[in-house]
Amino acid sequence: MNKEINGLIVSKILYKELNKYLLKKDIIPKVVDISIGNDFGGQMYAKMKEEKITSNTLIDFVSVHFDSMQIEELEDYIISINQDPTITGLMIQLPLPDNLRSEERRLLDMIDPKIDVDGLTSLSAGKLSVGDISLVPCTPLGIETLLKVYDVSLEGRKVAIINRSNIVGKSLAQLMLRNNATPIICHSKTKNLSKVTSDCDIVVVALNKQEFITADYIKDGSVVIDVGVHKNKEGKTVGDIEFDEVYKKASLITPSIGAVGPMTICMLAYNAAKSVYGKEIDNLLEEGIMKAKELIKTKK
Amino acid sequence: MNKEINGLIVSKILYKELNKYLLKKDIIPKVVDISIGNDFGGQMYAKMKEEKITSNTLIDFVSVHFDSMQIEELEDYIISINQDPTITGLMIQLPLPDNLRSEERRLLDMIDPKIDVDGLTSLSAGKLSVGDISLVPCTPLGIETLLKVYDVSLEGRKVAIINRSNIVGKSLAQLMLRNNATPIICHSKTKNLSKVTSDCDIVVVALNKQEFITADYIKDGSVVIDVGVHKNKEGKTVGDIEFDEVYKKASLITPSIGAVGPMTICMLAYNAAKSVYGKEIDNLLEEGIMKAKELIKTKK
Repeated sequence: MNKEINGLIVSKILYKELNKYLLKKDIIPKVVDISIGNDFGGQMYAKMKEEKITSNTLIDFVSVHFDSMQIEELEDYIISINQDPTITGLMIQLPLPDNLRSEERRLLDMIDPKIDVDGLTSLSAGKLSVGDISLVPCTPLGIETLLKVYDVSLEGRKVAIINRSNIVGKSLAQLMLRNNATPIICHSKTKNLSKVTSDCDIVVVALNKQEFITADYIKDGSVVIDVGVHKNKEGKTVGDIEFDEVYKKASLITPSIGAVGPMTICMLAYNAAKSVYGKEIDNLLEEGIMKAKELIKTKK
Repeated sequence: MNKEINGLIVSKILYKELNKYLLKKDIIPKVVDISIGNDFGGQMYAKMKEEKITSNTLIDFVSVHFDSMQIEELEDYIISINQDPTITGLMIQLPLPDNLRSEERRLLDMIDPKIDVDGLTSLSAGKLSVGDISLVPCTPLGIETLLKVYDVSLEGRKVAIINRSNIVGKSLAQLMLRNNATPIICHSKTKNLSKVTSDCDIVVVALNKQEFITADYIKDGSVVIDVGVHKNKEGKTVGDIEFDEVYKKASLITPSIGAVGPMTICMLAYNAAKSVYGKEIDNLLEEGIMKAKELIKTKK
């Protein structure tokens, strides 16, 4: 049996569903993704998002790059996009350059929550917490979707989340709670991390340390999700987990390429549609998950 | 050594600090607490808040009761209070009566977040999640304060929270994270709860089941916080934990009266001041905690 979770196949099915839906609609979502400065990873990622969403969906996705920007310029730009009725989604690529970084929270919160397709405003975080319909950060949403497609039972199960950022860990904890799982939010200060994680049924790793999580951190039969992406000395892409060793113990595992990454971008497309069509897109995603689940079952 | 946490003493010190602060200020906070319908517990609690805050602080706290209310009336009332410059805090006693309950979230979110002294709006929840200055729900804030006063080390320690509501469990998880603890959010679907909790250094119980948590749920030396309040068959007030048995194993424990309850109301007074004076009140609370800590040390 193949234990590897395939996010590429899942995302393809979900893109297809989304396009079928959008074809019947008058308004096609239009997203602006602002990136500023010369952070190499950030620029690469901005280009990839544009390329993937444009090639896979009907969504109009525009990556706008600025070599540098003063804070007042960015403020004015955000306001102008909020007011532009033709733009239905706005996101700002992080990290911001040095001159803007200390104001990151305030700048993100200038985004109109209705078009906050990255789910990073305070109001989006709050709505997720209180259980309201909201735009949810894409990486945790992609992880929840993969777990559902692969029929991973969540109710009552212990989920270790190694990350406490809003964009990944805290939001994922909210999603795990809404599936009746028991989340444990771990981070750099957590004592005896391997003892905590090896006691959990599901382990989600986003600590951004190359191949840090060895087989000792994992109990037999657990489900392991790896958010990390690194290039190792040999130029090979690896994750936060030592894949080959962890693979032997896990019942399901994500490779560092082709699992969480494509799902994150796919969920961005769903969020872009949700900012226009609201709860209908949640239903569409649930239907897509059912279809992907069927396909995965026949492939097992 | 007395293992019982004394929230009454702590709240008295904190009230004193708050009053000293307010005496020097021009604006005295004015809070309106709306209660509707005939929920006995809710009405009792509304009266108690008014009585305690009025007798212990300079704050102008007004409990306004309506036997019944149509949704439009409540909406208009909230709007009028939001617009009244003399009122600096607004809270709505839960549970709402049947005719309003399905709209609870929308009604709470009509409260201007600036005067949301109960910390129950979506925006307050979001700000807490992203780490912004915000009005934090009073019970978790009171628990965090008690743990600080009693010098409970939080960094790296595992904290089981048996509650996943926004008003208690989820907000407390955020507060534990900001203290570098590792929170585990448990609830009715958590499997093997006693195994989870007996592996934790700190256990916070808010499951609203009379004396449900026995000594089996607790490991030796742990800190146990009980949010539950019940009257038992003999008319005695008991909590969610079986106090006498758990007491023997705990290193610190809250009695069901005189610990979390008074701290919750005391934190409401601090929130009332914070809605007027902002971050200064966070600093005031930190200073009060230091004073209470000294006093508690000398009493040990």
